[in-house]
Amino acid sequence: MNPIDTVESVFANSNLLFEVLGTLAFALSGLIEAARKKLDFVGMAMVSALAAFGGGTLRDVLLDRRPFFWVQNEFWLWVLLAIVLAAMLFVRSRHLEVTARATTWPDALGLGIFTASGTQIALNAGLSPLVSIIMGIITAVFGGVLRDVVVNEIPRAFSDHQPYSVIAFIGGWVVVGLNSLGSSDFWAITVGALFIIAVRILAIVRGWRLPEWRA
Amino acid sequence: MNPIDTVESVFANSNLLFEVLGTLAFALSGLIEAARKKLDFVGMAMVSALAAFGGGTLRDVLLDRRPFFWVQNEFWLWVLLAIVLAAMLFVRSRHLEVTARATTWPDALGLGIFTASGTQIALNAGLSPLVSIIMGIITAVFGGVLRDVVVNEIPRAFSDHQPYSVIAFIGGWVVVGLNSLGSSDFWAITVGALFIIAVRILAIVRGWRLPEWRA
Amino acid sequence: MNPIDTVESVFANSNLLFEVLGTLAFALSGLIEAARKKLDFVGMAMVSALAAFGGGTLRDVLLDRRPFFWVQNEFWLWVLLAIVLAAMLFVRSRHLEVTARATTWPDALGLGIFTASGTQIALNAGLSPLVSIIMGIITAVFGGVLRDVVVNEIPRAFSDHQPYSVIAFIGGWVVVGLNSLGSSDFWAITVGALFIIAVRILAIVRGWRLPEWRA
Repeated sequence: MNPIDTVESVFANSNLLFEVLGTLAFALSGLIEAARKKLDFVGMAMVSALAAFGGGTLRDVLLDRRPFFWVQNEFWLWVLLAIVLAAMLFVRSRHLEVTARATTWPDALGLGIFTASGTQIALNAGLSPLVSIIMGIITAVFGGVLRDVVVNEIPRAFSDHQPYSVIAFIGGWVVVGLNSLGSSDFWAITVGALFIIAVRILAIVRGWRLPEWRA
Repeated sequence: MNPIDTVESVFANSNLLFEVLGTLAFALSGLIEAARKKLDFVGMAMVSALAAFGGGTLRDVLLDRRPFFWVQNEFWLWVLLAIVLAAMLFVRSRHLEVTARATTWPDALGLGIFTASGTQIALNAGLSPLVSIIMGIITAVFGGVLRDVVVNEIPRAFSDHQPYSVIAFIGGWVVVGLNSLGSSDFWAITVGALFIIAVRILAIVRGWRLPEWRA
Repeated sequence: MNPIDTVESVFANSNLLFEVLGTLAFALSGLIEAARKKLDFVGMAMVSALAAFGGGTLRDVLLDRRPFFWVQNEFWLWVLLAIVLAAMLFVRSRHLEVTARATTWPDALGLGIFTASGTQIALNAGLSPLVSIIMGIITAVFGGVLRDVVVNEIPRAFSDHQPYSVIAFIGGWVVVGLNSLGSSDFWAITVGALFIIAVRILAIVRGWRLPEWRA
């Protein structure tokens, strides 16, 4: 095994770890939203599943791609059911705010991983750079949009004036640029995701906000 | 015709009757919701159609299956338009509560029939037991979810603490079990549907509720 | 070039002009709704895109048709981004009502063009008249439905008692009728669209309303 292969193998494992953390963060965001709205067990499971898998499923429907992630990796459906059950048994409302704050960081991982991988999947399907980046954003952001729509809130991604989709948009161009430089899928996704994660964390730490529309 | 064939033929006809009753119950639930929200004729027709056909259509989009039920059986679109017209001419708001209560029973038929048939369709498409049952639940439950989302309510199926999707989930395993015992599609659907219908009626009569999340 | 060809070429250019005006009107309706709800830049872009392209995209998903309009004509995505940027820089809330009123007329163009072309596309895909007309209505109306659902409003198309989808429904039968008389796609779409546009403008000018449901 040459050094590059070793690096790729270490990174591939971190990639899987990141993806797991991102999926869990998205599922938790759904669970928290469902708990705030006092949904029942079914609502908690459905809203968590929408938040975790909704974006990737919508991208695959738009790209006419099958099987879906959760159809091929059924294991994650069981994990999700277990999390919801555990949450109902052990979580109390005083834990919710703590958990919400704690999901900020894995959520940044999710944003980076899912935007970068979604963009790469669309590029591989032959779509143009702009359309591919939109597919990447849909992958990362529309789970949360569906989560909010279904519990009767205006999607946070559309209204909180945080640089979230905008960072994903810029990071998508990093993925596109690396592809046009002949980089492998692996490196394009990894560098694109790390770029998005870093900028997103910077944005949270520094409290960056989108410019207000001057009404 | 041997006795088994006769039984199947009688049951097949009841199946059709059940399916009709289930579709009508779902359409009526949409109509009632639309009337409560004071929608106009178009809104009534659209929300009824979403409630009646939305779940099956979403399942078919996810399974990449065409044609949709309402494309192949256009007759039902005309029935739906006729029902909405009749409702606008003859129904007054004092009738709404009575009708809402009256739809509880055919709604249980719809839950059973559509969960069982949706699960079987997904099994036949080669999906795993858990994913197939989820497709069955989507068939039976997501028409109502779309109905509620579109009139700006949190879906009842996520928030009313009634054992509805949970019964469908358990009944889905009955369908899966019968399949693995080598039962025909017909018997798997029939027994699975009857199981769900019976348990759902029991749940209504006994007033069963899902456990509360202890906030 | 014989006279008929000249007419077709002039009309084809007006058709393109109409389509552009219709798309812009739908995008503006999304922009205005997003501004009213004080969404951020991302929300404005997303809601405008949903309003402009959501109906056609949903139709194509239902018909299993690819590529989508906005995938094949990426130019329009850039136009949309430019409009949203310009709106954030130059539009103030006192302009909103004026703009809302100004979009009434191009919106009527959009209703006509998209219903007629959506109906024709579905007829060409071999669907029945009624189903094709429903696909036409989905093309023209569901962008606005998605726009309203995502900003947490009951869809205007379902509740404002204006003859909007109903006019589209009648106009769809004009398209179907011309097809059964052997007319070319071009003329079926043109005449159907002009019919809808004319009746819609008449409805606005005369203040026609759908009959109320007598509660």
